[in-house]
Amino acid sequence: MTAKSQHHWGADALDVLRAGPGFVLSDLDPSSTPGHPGSKSRGQDDLASGLAQLDQYQERLFARSRTTDAPDRVLLVLQAMDSAGKGGIVRHVVGAVDPQGVSIASFKKPTPEELAHDFLWRIEKRVPAPGMIGVFDRSHYEDVLVGRVRSLAPADEIERRYGAINDFEARLVDSGTRVIKVMLHISYDEQRDRLMERLERPDKYWKYNPGDVDERALWPQYMDAYQTVFERTSTEVAPWYVVPADRKWYARLAVQTLLLETLERIDPQWPAADFDVEAEQKRLAVT
Amino acid sequence: MTAKSQHHWGADALDVLRAGPGFVLSDLDPSSTPGHPGSKSRGQDDLASGLAQLDQYQERLFARSRTTDAPDRVLLVLQAMDSAGKGGIVRHVVGAVDPQGVSIASFKKPTPEELAHDFLWRIEKRVPAPGMIGVFDRSHYEDVLVGRVRSLAPADEIERRYGAINDFEARLVDSGTRVIKVMLHISYDEQRDRLMERLERPDKYWKYNPGDVDERALWPQYMDAYQTVFERTSTEVAPWYVVPADRKWYARLAVQTLLLETLERIDPQWPAADFDVEAEQKRLAVT
Repeated sequence: MTAKSQHHWGADALDVLRAGPGFVLSDLDPSSTPGHPGSKSRGQDDLASGLAQLDQYQERLFARSRTTDAPDRVLLVLQAMDSAGKGGIVRHVVGAVDPQGVSIASFKKPTPEELAHDFLWRIEKRVPAPGMIGVFDRSHYEDVLVGRVRSLAPADEIERRYGAINDFEARLVDSGTRVIKVMLHISYDEQRDRLMERLERPDKYWKYNPGDVDERALWPQYMDAYQTVFERTSTEVAPWYVVPADRKWYARLAVQTLLLETLERIDPQWPAADFDVEAEQKRLAVT
Repeated sequence: MTAKSQHHWGADALDVLRAGPGFVLSDLDPSSTPGHPGSKSRGQDDLASGLAQLDQYQERLFARSRTTDAPDRVLLVLQAMDSAGKGGIVRHVVGAVDPQGVSIASFKKPTPEELAHDFLWRIEKRVPAPGMIGVFDRSHYEDVLVGRVRSLAPADEIERRYGAINDFEARLVDSGTRVIKVMLHISYDEQRDRLMERLERPDKYWKYNPGDVDERALWPQYMDAYQTVFERTSTEVAPWYVVPADRKWYARLAVQTLLLETLERIDPQWPAADFDVEAEQKRLAVT
C-alpha cells in the first residue's frame, strides 16, 4: 500500500512541499497546487480515496502501541494566519479517522500560569503518546511569531527560543515522534474574502474577531517572522512544509498526503497475538 | 428542528431508555429495540440523518461558548461489558462531529499515582469545558463495578462511593453539564461471538485480552453490580440509560438520539455579534 499510487500526486509531497535551504516564502504562490495537476474534482476524489488509507494506517499505528512497546507516533503542527483553514484540516482530514487515536491541542493566548513558565511548559504536556496522531492547532511557534511581531518578549529571548525549539523537537524525534510542521499559506486578498464572509453570515459571526483586522495590518511583519522561522527551525529531523492554501481542497489533500507518506514510512503492521490463539478459542468456546 | 421528527422513534429516547425506579436489568432483552420499529435499514437511515443534526447542534453549542459565558456542555458516560460497542459509539456517533468540539477520556486500570488519590481525582481532571461534548470511555463507575466484583476496596468504601458519585454528578449538573450515563447492555452469548471474532481475525487480535475470559466468568456478579449502580446512582439530575446493544445499529442510533434530545433541550443558538458588523465590514474592506 503506497500513498502516492492512489493519488494524482506527481512526486512525494514530503519533498515537494518541504521548506528546505534557500526556501523563500514570498516566491510561493498561495493559489498554486504543487505536486498535483490542480483539478478540484480530481483533488476531491483523491481526498476521499486517501481517507480509507489514513484510517487503516491510523488503526495499525494505534493497535501496535497497545500491545507492543513501539514508540511511533505522529505530531502534526499547524500554523497559519487567521482563516487559512486550520479548522478545516482538523475537521476534514484528521477528523476522518477514529477519534480515539487522535489528540488535538489548541493553543490560545497563554494564561498567567502558562506565562509564569518557560514557553515550552504548556507544549510538553500535550505531546502525543505512542500510537497517537497528535495535532497542535497553533503551537510553540506562536512564541516566535506573534511573540516577535508584537514584541511580547525581548529580542534575545526570541533568539534563544529558536534553539530551544530545535532541541525540543530533536528530542521528540528521538523518542519516536514524526513531527510534521505545516504552514498553511494564504494570500492577503484571500484572507480578506474569508473574513468578509464571516461578517456576512450570522452563523459565522462567532469566528470573527475585530482583532483579526489589527493583525492583518501587520501582514508583512508576520511573513518576515515566518521566513525567519523556516530559516532557523526547518531542520533535517523536523522540517517545515509550506502548503499553498488559497484553494481549500488542495490544502486538505496536501496535508492528508503528508500524513499518508509519513505513516507509510512508519509502515505499522498489525501486532501478532501475544497469546495462544487456539488455546483461547477453546477456552472461550466452553463459556 | 426536533430530533424526533426526523427519526422513526415512537417516543422520547430519554424516557424510553431511562433506568427509573423499579428498573430491573435482567428484564431487559439485549436484542430488543425499544422506541424503534427495529428495521436495520431504517435504523441506518435514521443514523445518517441524525448525523447532520448532531453536527449542527454541536457547532452551535461550541460557538456559543466561545463568545458568551453560557456554561452548557454535555458529558456522555459509557459503561459496558467488554466488546459491547463503546468504541463503535465513539467512532460512529461522536466521531461524526467536529473533533475540536469533543474531548474523549478513556479510563484504564488506575496508575499507582491515581490510586494514591481519591477515586474521583483522575475523573475531575477530565470533565468537559463549556461548549464541549465530553465522552468518558469507562469512568468513575469502574470503581463501584470492578471495584466491587473484584473486592478492590473494602465494602464500606464501595458504599461511600455511591454517595460521592451522586454529589459529584449533582455538582457537574449545577455547573451546566448535562450528564448522559449509558450502559450498553449485551447478552452473554453475544459477547462470546464478538470475542470469538477477535480470535479469528489477525487485524483484531490486538483487541483481545485473555483477561476478558476471566471477567466473563464473573458475568452474574457484574450484572448484580450494575443493578446496584442503577438503584443507587440513577438520580433525578443524572439518570442512567440502559441501551440494548446486541444490535450495533440500534445501540448507535439510541445513543445518537439521547445526545440529540439532550442538545435539543439546551437548544443553543448562534451567538449574536459582539461587534458592529457594518463598521467591521468597512474597516476590513479598506485593507
